[in-house]
Amino acid sequence: MRIIAMNEFEMIERYFLPLTRGHAGAGGLRDDAAVLGIPDGHELVVTSDTLNENVHFLAGELPSNVARKALRVNLSDLAAMGATPLCYQLNIAFPKKPDEAWLAAFSKALEEDNEAYGVFCSGGDTTSIKGEYLSISMTAMGIVPKGKAVRRSGAQNGDYIVLTGAVGDAYLGLKTLQEGLDVRAYGGAVSRYQIPCPRMNIEGIVRQYAHAAADISDGLLADCMHIANASGMGAEIDLQKMVFSEDVQCALDDGIIMLEDVLKGGDDYELILAVSPENAPLMIRELKKNDLNPMIIGFFRSQTLSLSILNTRTLRIDGKNLGWKHF
Amino acid sequence: MRIIAMNEFEMIERYFLPLTRGHAGAGGLRDDAAVLGIPDGHELVVTSDTLNENVHFLAGELPSNVARKALRVNLSDLAAMGATPLCYQLNIAFPKKPDEAWLAAFSKALEEDNEAYGVFCSGGDTTSIKGEYLSISMTAMGIVPKGKAVRRSGAQNGDYIVLTGAVGDAYLGLKTLQEGLDVRAYGGAVSRYQIPCPRMNIEGIVRQYAHAAADISDGLLADCMHIANASGMGAEIDLQKMVFSEDVQCALDDGIIMLEDVLKGGDDYELILAVSPENAPLMIRELKKNDLNPMIIGFFRSQTLSLSILNTRTLRIDGKNLGWKHF
Repeated sequence: MRIIAMNEFEMIERYFLPLTRGHAGAGGLRDDAAVLGIPDGHELVVTSDTLNENVHFLAGELPSNVARKALRVNLSDLAAMGATPLCYQLNIAFPKKPDEAWLAAFSKALEEDNEAYGVFCSGGDTTSIKGEYLSISMTAMGIVPKGKAVRRSGAQNGDYIVLTGAVGDAYLGLKTLQEGLDVRAYGGAVSRYQIPCPRMNIEGIVRQYAHAAADISDGLLADCMHIANASGMGAEIDLQKMVFSEDVQCALDDGIIMLEDVLKGGDDYELILAVSPENAPLMIRELKKNDLNPMIIGFFRSQTLSLSILNTRTLRIDGKNLGWKHF
Repeated sequence: MRIIAMNEFEMIERYFLPLTRGHAGAGGLRDDAAVLGIPDGHELVVTSDTLNENVHFLAGELPSNVARKALRVNLSDLAAMGATPLCYQLNIAFPKKPDEAWLAAFSKALEEDNEAYGVFCSGGDTTSIKGEYLSISMTAMGIVPKGKAVRRSGAQNGDYIVLTGAVGDAYLGLKTLQEGLDVRAYGGAVSRYQIPCPRMNIEGIVRQYAHAAADISDGLLADCMHIANASGMGAEIDLQKMVFSEDVQCALDDGIIMLEDVLKGGDDYELILAVSPENAPLMIRELKKNDLNPMIIGFFRSQTLSLSILNTRTLRIDGKNLGWKHF
């Protein structure tokens, strides 16, 4: 790998400046800060996610996958609020001087995602960090009509729990890579783990129908209970209503993974939406028009604060440990 | 040090939730993102800075100093744009589970700075990182009346270079700590290095008078040339016009530090402002009213793109290496 004779400013100009897509707000990355216009009648939605090598992605992961994951997990948080993405701040801490090939692949992947999701890089920071591992911290910004952001706390008694797509693939993908399972057998799941697919372009539907929303980054059960807790409710999930991808169903049938793992594994980046029974069919029809496979998997209810899981004989859930924990 | 039995959510609730100061936009740190109102007729100003242990602050630094430095270096960037600070996203990557005393001291210092600077924490991310060292990435947001942000590119031919205060203290402070110099002799400089003092509450003056501005985080000469380059100009600095702190003057006189180091050392967080000769006296009077000791140290000029340094017999500057570089 060729290390180029390049200082920080040259690196920024060559690889990060194109990510601004010429937006005036980024000021050519030459100012101390970006200056962004927020349309009248809108609010700013802001989220941050840090991805650390060997924690949030495997050591030595492809730079293109790292780039996409860093951006997309942040965009997923904006989607969960019903926000339209605008731009992002990109902070990268390099354990050693990065080589040209890594930077080129990383920035190319971000350029493609910029185009796909209609966002741009507004600024950030490149630093050196002691140790062996890369750390990427992004702050993504979006906009939402004033008062229309969808929060976790809005679920109402009897609201259906709508899931925008199948879960468990990211967990299976990670397990496949970590335990050396047959990657050919679970290729879809591996790709789902490596390159999340945030539920973009449905923010209008989310704002119109959802009383509450969250993305499933911590695991289905954990994030479901985040909405329930924030709304002062409990949740009931019916396992018979859940449909899994072919990969996940296969791995479940073969005993490669356990149902509990699928329900607790994070990183799927589907959305959970709380929607009234009347509106659920309308919302589901709209989501299907956007090539999603939504499913009603249960409901929120105010009679209890706990989680009930129906139609399971084999599942035992430790209510104190529903999902991903850092510490 | 006592490690408490505490998960990520408990840690957030106990130590980070108070940093939101109850602002509705932070949503009690329970949503996927913050929702912030930007007053009509204003633009959002956004900046990010990452601080890595053993790179940007010394290993084992007091948690209160780390907290203040992380916030203040970001606020300094907002000040350089003429923006009024609003809030910040706080991303911390912990190499090991943090102990209660560290978290308490860290969050207390931020609470004090929140109060002092009128800002709040809007969200962020707490993660674990492999290795030995802490990494903190902040994104600070502020507001500015539409079209009134002060950029680096606005300097005009003949504008004076106004410096809001003496530089070199941070360099001397770092050297004192690293080389075991007499801390009693250079206590002011040490504190200046450890706890930057951003030039807040003068954003109205900056917006009214400055054609261009930058904060001195990379070093006086480097940041001066950032303005010059962005404005298509050169700069002339007259060393006879520069006044140093007692600590720095003493260390210079005694040959403990070199003038070149003072001019190139970063981390001082004063502002450099480009202002017309007519307006300079008015601006300086206003800055003095805010307890600053501003000085006119030279001017920008369009006849050349280079840096001239007047009144020096001993100084030799390598034009390619004017300040701090990461790589």
